[in-house]
Amino acid sequence: MTVNLKERLEEFKALDEKICAFSSVLSLAGWDAKVKAPKKGRMTFAKSIGALSTEVFKLSVSKEMGELLEYLTSPEVYEQLNETDKAIVRVRNHSYSRSKSIPTELYQEYSVLTGEANNAWEDARANNDFSLYQPYLERMVEIKKQFAEYFGYEKHPYDALMDDYEPGLTVEEIDPIFAGLRKSSIDLLDRIKKSGNEPDTSMLEKDYNIAEQEAYLLTLLPEFGYDLEAGRLDATIHPFASTINGNDVRITTRYEKNNIAFALFSTIHEAGHALYEQGINESFEGTVLRRGTSLGIHESQSRFFENMVGRSEEFWKAYYNGLQEAFPNHLSDVTLDSFYRAVNKVQPSNIRVEADELTYNLHVMLRYEIEKGLISGDIAVKDLPKIWNEKMEEYLGIVPENDTVGVLQDVHWSFGAIGYFHTYSLGNLYAAQLLNTITKEMPDFYEQIANGNILAIREWMKEKIHQYGKLYLPSELIKMATGEELNAKYLVDYLESKYTKLYNL
Amino acid sequence: MTVNLKERLEEFKALDEKICAFSSVLSLAGWDAKVKAPKKGRMTFAKSIGALSTEVFKLSVSKEMGELLEYLTSPEVYEQLNETDKAIVRVRNHSYSRSKSIPTELYQEYSVLTGEANNAWEDARANNDFSLYQPYLERMVEIKKQFAEYFGYEKHPYDALMDDYEPGLTVEEIDPIFAGLRKSSIDLLDRIKKSGNEPDTSMLEKDYNIAEQEAYLLTLLPEFGYDLEAGRLDATIHPFASTINGNDVRITTRYEKNNIAFALFSTIHEAGHALYEQGINESFEGTVLRRGTSLGIHESQSRFFENMVGRSEEFWKAYYNGLQEAFPNHLSDVTLDSFYRAVNKVQPSNIRVEADELTYNLHVMLRYEIEKGLISGDIAVKDLPKIWNEKMEEYLGIVPENDTVGVLQDVHWSFGAIGYFHTYSLGNLYAAQLLNTITKEMPDFYEQIANGNILAIREWMKEKIHQYGKLYLPSELIKMATGEELNAKYLVDYLESKYTKLYNL
Repeated sequence: MTVNLKERLEEFKALDEKICAFSSVLSLAGWDAKVKAPKKGRMTFAKSIGALSTEVFKLSVSKEMGELLEYLTSPEVYEQLNETDKAIVRVRNHSYSRSKSIPTELYQEYSVLTGEANNAWEDARANNDFSLYQPYLERMVEIKKQFAEYFGYEKHPYDALMDDYEPGLTVEEIDPIFAGLRKSSIDLLDRIKKSGNEPDTSMLEKDYNIAEQEAYLLTLLPEFGYDLEAGRLDATIHPFASTINGNDVRITTRYEKNNIAFALFSTIHEAGHALYEQGINESFEGTVLRRGTSLGIHESQSRFFENMVGRSEEFWKAYYNGLQEAFPNHLSDVTLDSFYRAVNKVQPSNIRVEADELTYNLHVMLRYEIEKGLISGDIAVKDLPKIWNEKMEEYLGIVPENDTVGVLQDVHWSFGAIGYFHTYSLGNLYAAQLLNTITKEMPDFYEQIANGNILAIREWMKEKIHQYGKLYLPSELIKMATGEELNAKYLVDYLESKYTKLYNL
Repeated sequence: MTVNLKERLEEFKALDEKICAFSSVLSLAGWDAKVKAPKKGRMTFAKSIGALSTEVFKLSVSKEMGELLEYLTSPEVYEQLNETDKAIVRVRNHSYSRSKSIPTELYQEYSVLTGEANNAWEDARANNDFSLYQPYLERMVEIKKQFAEYFGYEKHPYDALMDDYEPGLTVEEIDPIFAGLRKSSIDLLDRIKKSGNEPDTSMLEKDYNIAEQEAYLLTLLPEFGYDLEAGRLDATIHPFASTINGNDVRITTRYEKNNIAFALFSTIHEAGHALYEQGINESFEGTVLRRGTSLGIHESQSRFFENMVGRSEEFWKAYYNGLQEAFPNHLSDVTLDSFYRAVNKVQPSNIRVEADELTYNLHVMLRYEIEKGLISGDIAVKDLPKIWNEKMEEYLGIVPENDTVGVLQDVHWSFGAIGYFHTYSLGNLYAAQLLNTITKEMPDFYEQIANGNILAIREWMKEKIHQYGKLYLPSELIKMATGEELNAKYLVDYLESKYTKLYNL
């Protein structure tokens, strides 16, 4: 390595570290705004957050960054870098190129629009009137189409947008995967409905003291390996996980007095995200690699621990006694089997975020189809309410009674997140594929769960996925971990097997 | 105003706003590190805070800032500015000049030393061994002497250091004020000791449930006008107030199971600080003026509400019933008078932060005398334990049993805060002077308190002090509010009158 290369690499890494440091403080600010900030301070603080976000953006696309990347990505220099430094260069270069490809005026229009569209969406939702949102969403779609052209793509313009959230994955790859999953899910749902074998969920809906729910969860989280000395559990309306740094990954949940299942599984879900970020190689701290590699892989971790582990029969073999002891008045006369069936009840409903493990993917695929059509031009924004309801009928067999619980339910489009939804189902697909691998490599997988040794599973996941952070692309990582590319078969088989047994089909 | 002036003024204000925005995020980060951050994340996060602090410092002393200040402070330009802009220029120029006057190498040595000295202080304290701290403190004093020379001063080098915390005040002004206060305090303390009329404090030391203490305080805070929608109350070992912005001023307290008085009065104290910052003119938001003007004026607000209001007999006439209702098992058989006397008990003790209203100033003046001697060279660091104990005997009539509860008790010197302590007593002096004015302008002052109308007093203070932020220097502000310069007489008279009655002297 030449003196020049060494110096410029150090300069580049210092810039990366500075951006990461500022981003870390911004993460804290974002967490605080949602969790602790008093009402009146939030608006004022938004300006401060804005100023620091702008600084981070400026640094990421600065002349200095551009020059360093140009030098470091030239083939004869790049090949001299070690694997870690190559990855840092790759990640920074990807976001630099994308940001620089959008003309400043267009980006400014987009930034203003996200604020306006979000307000319009809130109004439309409150008034159950899609037309209030329509012009903003139309402009948003137009801008996103232009973004796609500026970003560039090989086959489908939607590929260019999905690349923000799941780098490298395309419509051509996802379409057949989703087609298979959709068909089998609709079929399975149909059989479940006809079975008439509906679980009783009344024991979940008794009066559960919120402080006691919290106390119980604080005993459950360490069982997964979530480190409470490197995180926190707080309450918010919308549960989320937030990484300040690798030693401070915070989660939130929502407590509902008459629905113990909500806090229970949303907490395990967010803990799954947090386990990923707590488990990334510590030597990546202060670099852009110290985060999960994609939304899809992230969601695979939250879904794996929530559903494949947390909703398994074996999990409750190990933990149901403890839950009964925490809530004796509620559960002492409820059998393990009844409880297990209750937390796995399938019930088509309007709202995605309340959907069960099976129907969730149908909600996601509906959005994927719609977004793809919007970007290709096959679907017009004005037709969305109609198309939404038709697809709901086709996929889930129900029609929302109004747009507020239909096409207006999600915030995502209003802030420009188009190309995001599919990552939720990718998470389920990756999770099932990882489940298939772990049950081969760890044949006593379900025994371990039944013995309450979730830590062994967490260790496996850490070794296969967590530790790498952004070192590898999601497609590389899943191939390394499971030996093959993304394959819908595993999720289809998992759902088929689980619900056939559960509903005695 | 010329086009050039207008443009440069805007540039300057944008720079001021940017520094304020980053500082606001840093305030939040500092709050979080003390209140919410998980143990393992704090060390990692310290690096991120450090990176952003460095950025703020760089912006404050940047070439851009220097050029703008040079232009804006030139007399023919400065006189064209309005009062607010003049003040922003004054405050920024003061910190710019001071920061630039210290050579970079010396400042770096100082920064490193503060970390090392703090560790050494912790060790020395844990081992009750001053010698572990001595070499670091010696170097700290040496550096601070050099700072004083670089900052410049007219008469006493210590003036240059005090200027950081109470701009403009000098040894020449403080010495006679403190001399009078010291003499009268020692004399008053002597008479109290001899009176034998000691209050019974046992009712404060019963078992007070912590959640109930918190619930009570949350009802008490709004009585002072503290806006809980623009702040929060949390628990920490060391109580403090922290401003994120004018609409988000958070306070903390410490709950002690067997000492209700601690949380009670430390909360009112911190609320006093917070009332100041919540009450600053909103149009100053996003500028350097949106903070209290000095530590002394700040402390006048915390002390005024804690002592002049919160420890007055009239205050408990209004609120003792409520406290009894909150803690019936503890207080129902305790008379108002017994309670009032208990929370005003005078008791010389080793520890400053636990001192009562009268002896507190003696602790402070002891430190002032010592610091002044260290900086003038009249006192050597190695002699501190001896000098400390001699002065304790002289001022308070007690000698600490060891250095941990003596000369090693305060953290301040270890992080370079020399020239800070006197602001604590300045706060009491200003508070008493403001009390004298308010009782003249609002003759029913004590009636208002007895009627639970603390808001009227808060409004008066907002009009006289709070609203101005950093628009005026502390000396200007106190003169505007009270019609005269700092005068020790008011505090001396207040203490004399209060304790003569309370101890029946």
